[in-house]
Amino acid sequence: MASRSNLMRALRTPVIGANASRSAAAGRALATSRRTTQPSTSAPSSTSTPAGSRSFSSSSRRLVAPTPARRTKLTTETYPNLQRDPRFAVVTEDHVARFREILGDSPSAIVDGVSGAVDEGDLEPFNEDWMHKYKGQTRLVLKPASTDEVSRILRYCNDQRLAVVPQGGNTGLVGGSIPVFDEIVISIARMNQIRSFDDVSGSLVVDAGCILEAVDQYLAKQGYIFPLDLGAKGSCHVGGNVSTNAGGLRLLRYGSLHGSVLGVEAVLPDGTVMNDLCTLRKNNTGYDLKQLFIGAEGTLGVITKLAIHCPQRSPAVNVALFGLESYDKAQLAFREAKKQLSEILSAFELMDGRSQQIVSEVKGQDKPLEGDHPFYCLIETSGSNGEHDYAKLEAFLEDVMTREVIADGVVAQDETQIRTLWGWREGITECLGHWGGTYKYDVSIPLKEMYKLVEDTKARMEEAGLLGDTPEHPVVAVLGYGHMGDSNLHLNIPVRRYDPQVEQALEPFVYEWIQKRNGSISAEHGLGIAKKNFVGYSRDDTMLGLMKQIKNLYDPNGIMNPYKYL
Amino acid sequence: MASRSNLMRALRTPVIGANASRSAAAGRALATSRRTTQPSTSAPSSTSTPAGSRSFSSSSRRLVAPTPARRTKLTTETYPNLQRDPRFAVVTEDHVARFREILGDSPSAIVDGVSGAVDEGDLEPFNEDWMHKYKGQTRLVLKPASTDEVSRILRYCNDQRLAVVPQGGNTGLVGGSIPVFDEIVISIARMNQIRSFDDVSGSLVVDAGCILEAVDQYLAKQGYIFPLDLGAKGSCHVGGNVSTNAGGLRLLRYGSLHGSVLGVEAVLPDGTVMNDLCTLRKNNTGYDLKQLFIGAEGTLGVITKLAIHCPQRSPAVNVALFGLESYDKAQLAFREAKKQLSEILSAFELMDGRSQQIVSEVKGQDKPLEGDHPFYCLIETSGSNGEHDYAKLEAFLEDVMTREVIADGVVAQDETQIRTLWGWREGITECLGHWGGTYKYDVSIPLKEMYKLVEDTKARMEEAGLLGDTPEHPVVAVLGYGHMGDSNLHLNIPVRRYDPQVEQALEPFVYEWIQKRNGSISAEHGLGIAKKNFVGYSRDDTMLGLMKQIKNLYDPNGIMNPYKYL
Repeated sequence: MASRSNLMRALRTPVIGANASRSAAAGRALATSRRTTQPSTSAPSSTSTPAGSRSFSSSSRRLVAPTPARRTKLTTETYPNLQRDPRFAVVTEDHVARFREILGDSPSAIVDGVSGAVDEGDLEPFNEDWMHKYKGQTRLVLKPASTDEVSRILRYCNDQRLAVVPQGGNTGLVGGSIPVFDEIVISIARMNQIRSFDDVSGSLVVDAGCILEAVDQYLAKQGYIFPLDLGAKGSCHVGGNVSTNAGGLRLLRYGSLHGSVLGVEAVLPDGTVMNDLCTLRKNNTGYDLKQLFIGAEGTLGVITKLAIHCPQRSPAVNVALFGLESYDKAQLAFREAKKQLSEILSAFELMDGRSQQIVSEVKGQDKPLEGDHPFYCLIETSGSNGEHDYAKLEAFLEDVMTREVIADGVVAQDETQIRTLWGWREGITECLGHWGGTYKYDVSIPLKEMYKLVEDTKARMEEAGLLGDTPEHPVVAVLGYGHMGDSNLHLNIPVRRYDPQVEQALEPFVYEWIQKRNGSISAEHGLGIAKKNFVGYSRDDTMLGLMKQIKNLYDPNGIMNPYKYL
Repeated sequence: MASRSNLMRALRTPVIGANASRSAAAGRALATSRRTTQPSTSAPSSTSTPAGSRSFSSSSRRLVAPTPARRTKLTTETYPNLQRDPRFAVVTEDHVARFREILGDSPSAIVDGVSGAVDEGDLEPFNEDWMHKYKGQTRLVLKPASTDEVSRILRYCNDQRLAVVPQGGNTGLVGGSIPVFDEIVISIARMNQIRSFDDVSGSLVVDAGCILEAVDQYLAKQGYIFPLDLGAKGSCHVGGNVSTNAGGLRLLRYGSLHGSVLGVEAVLPDGTVMNDLCTLRKNNTGYDLKQLFIGAEGTLGVITKLAIHCPQRSPAVNVALFGLESYDKAQLAFREAKKQLSEILSAFELMDGRSQQIVSEVKGQDKPLEGDHPFYCLIETSGSNGEHDYAKLEAFLEDVMTREVIADGVVAQDETQIRTLWGWREGITECLGHWGGTYKYDVSIPLKEMYKLVEDTKARMEEAGLLGDTPEHPVVAVLGYGHMGDSNLHLNIPVRRYDPQVEQALEPFVYEWIQKRNGSISAEHGLGIAKKNFVGYSRDDTMLGLMKQIKNLYDPNGIMNPYKYL
């Protein structure tokens, strides 16, 4: 039982910042430095563990053993059943000549592998994703500088039946922005201007190709914040964020992009410019068409500009970590945090004991709390008054400790400690790769049953004799962590080696399990090519039919980002 | 200049509750009692001023002089250019027989004026709106009790080309839920069950016919709140709220329904049940089709159930009212309130001096602040800790007074005073009708220019010689108030009598003015029949074409709520 004196010790004991790799980021802004799970360049980060090059995403099909000189498999090799759609024309030099008329001759506007003007290496950054999981075969990249150029490109492509893939920062996790065959890449990178900001209402208008971090830094100077935060913020484009309906850590506080995006300018496949770039919070003048483009992953058109409502930036940030003895108590803690921290709660993250044990073992660091706890929660508050926020947090922790909802807790005393505590949540992904690879599932499940997926999956692995501490067992552990505030679980299965038995035990088991609970097989990463074949686990045939009806309405020739999504 | 001592006096001086009519509501819950601008029954409220029966909505076309025994004009008389669409069948007794097969014989399920089973009076509540502005000619009302019944009704209507009007609580302001000719009314009133509530995540699933206040009262017992609040909450249905994309006072804090609605179950015109009733905050599995139904005003199908994310209820509520010397200062105060009150700010309302003068004159009450101010703002905070919130509010008021952003201010000390201060905002609508009628426009305008619409309209009335204090001038005043936090202005022109000159001076002037600023001619009330012909001022032809494309996709026979919306 946690005593009052024990609590106060825990509350006041500074956490010693033992995470050397994070302290290097100490001089950077808080929001930027503490969320870096995803490399900001297309190459994986180099780390002291071999895990860096073995990061895998939600779909398990591309899980391969690491090789010294790793070659990314073509997506068509990974998915041998995919056939190039014969409706689409093959890009010719005549086509390229027309694109040069539209865009000009500058190499900044066209990367031309069709006429042989560039070699394969110049096309690679557009053909491959940052995880080296997906690889396409485009021979042409177009980089329009204006909405009008996008419109003229698409109209011509539609007329000529040339398939295209819109591409932003190329930081996606499901292969959505990578061509499969020889689709033309339309990169939005040159469309990167901040168009307007109303510093009273918080309405921001930006080009789709703006980098999220650049926009957020611009807003920081005005005392505002972008209502979305991602590990990939240094590379991802805001247009891509909207096309993917990205979630991230701020969703608990600022809600989904369906609520915060005020307007969208998009170019439809036939070149039509849809000007729905409203900057107003209230506008009831007809169907809210822009919503279709939020999360459409470039299959209906190309988002070229967006307007978004930005909240004021909170000057005070607090972070606490606590240990709990059961998932039921974690739910109770979440409910109490919502009640008592209410308007200042900005993150509520769940990590199970196994995930924290692995981080501790792999990094060789002592955990911030004494002893082992079956569950840990990390909470962040963001508010306008540091004293008030700290008082609320302290009262909350005292209450939940006195009532034995939590077993122990610690509050960060400064920014270094904030980063250290976040490290126990953010370090998981990296550490899980320690043994060879990880099967990862990004799913939403109603909160009451969320963690049961981990328990049931673990039991299944044990029954199949796949889970154990010795080398003959492929599975190292079955664990879970994620955004508890959003019912968003990351089910992770670190393995010693690729093994078809593990995959067979996992799928369709996991998807069926989620289907039975009305969960979502894709919480925040989108469908892309990775989950195209699994949507039926979260949507019935009627919904799928209605979605395909929309696709056919906007893109009757199917040129927009083919082979993906639905 | 405001001195520090003056401020503290103002801050600490209790407001004497002089509003007798509001004190009657003292025993009711705060949220319920202080927002009652719209009567909760279909009949206008009886008040001591003649204004009660002279309340007019956004469109000026139906402004008529009050008569002792008032008869509501048929909508077809008001809009003589409207013609019944000859594609639609006329309801026969055979049709009614089929509907009886679906719904049973109970009078609670069918109000049958076709077979002569009921008289005109029984149909009137479904044919007329609560403002007595719109009047249809339906002879048949169907009240399904389940989604399946709605589906069977619509499939049959679609096959038979019978036009229908979905109807909720019938509290709309633009005639959207009232038939125009003989369309069949489908009332959702019997579908009124709360289906589920997850008291950890806050996900609520309810039938579309639930009354907003009933749902909110249910949530209050769980410590939660519905993320929408309206004057009509005692009558309106949540399905109607979503169909209208209602805004209200909580939008500043909880965002739009596009963000908070998690899922929708809707029946399409051909009877297809679209099950998009997700209860998860994150779900990236295809196009977000439910968004099309939010704000579609029943033109694409009938919403039968919805899932919505409900926030925790705030135990502490504070209200302050202050006077300002210019609109620029009101903007500055808004910016500072957002910054300093940040996460606890739940309302920021603007009222100009003229509106407050009229309330004072009509009600015969002294204003809560000494002297006259060109502008007044009412702010409300809602938080989890009353002491913290009051301290923030006090510090904010001290800061803005010291810097002369505001000229004077007062903070309510108890619930009675909270209601009294809100009365100065909410009493405007009623008091404006004192002289005969009011031209009302509910619009959104980028905040910097928002109030200029009032100034320019006033100048126009003065130039035309229409505005003055003597009886020969039709216009009493031109004034503005509204939800400053949402850039939502209510431009109001109280008049002594209906005068075509006033209307000619107002339209299309007001709409063109808004169009030039990329504003919205309909902020939160929808289009219905009132604004159908004016959408072009806020949407270009391309957008209108794309919207009509969606309408044709879902409702190729046009049976859903015809003659309205687009």
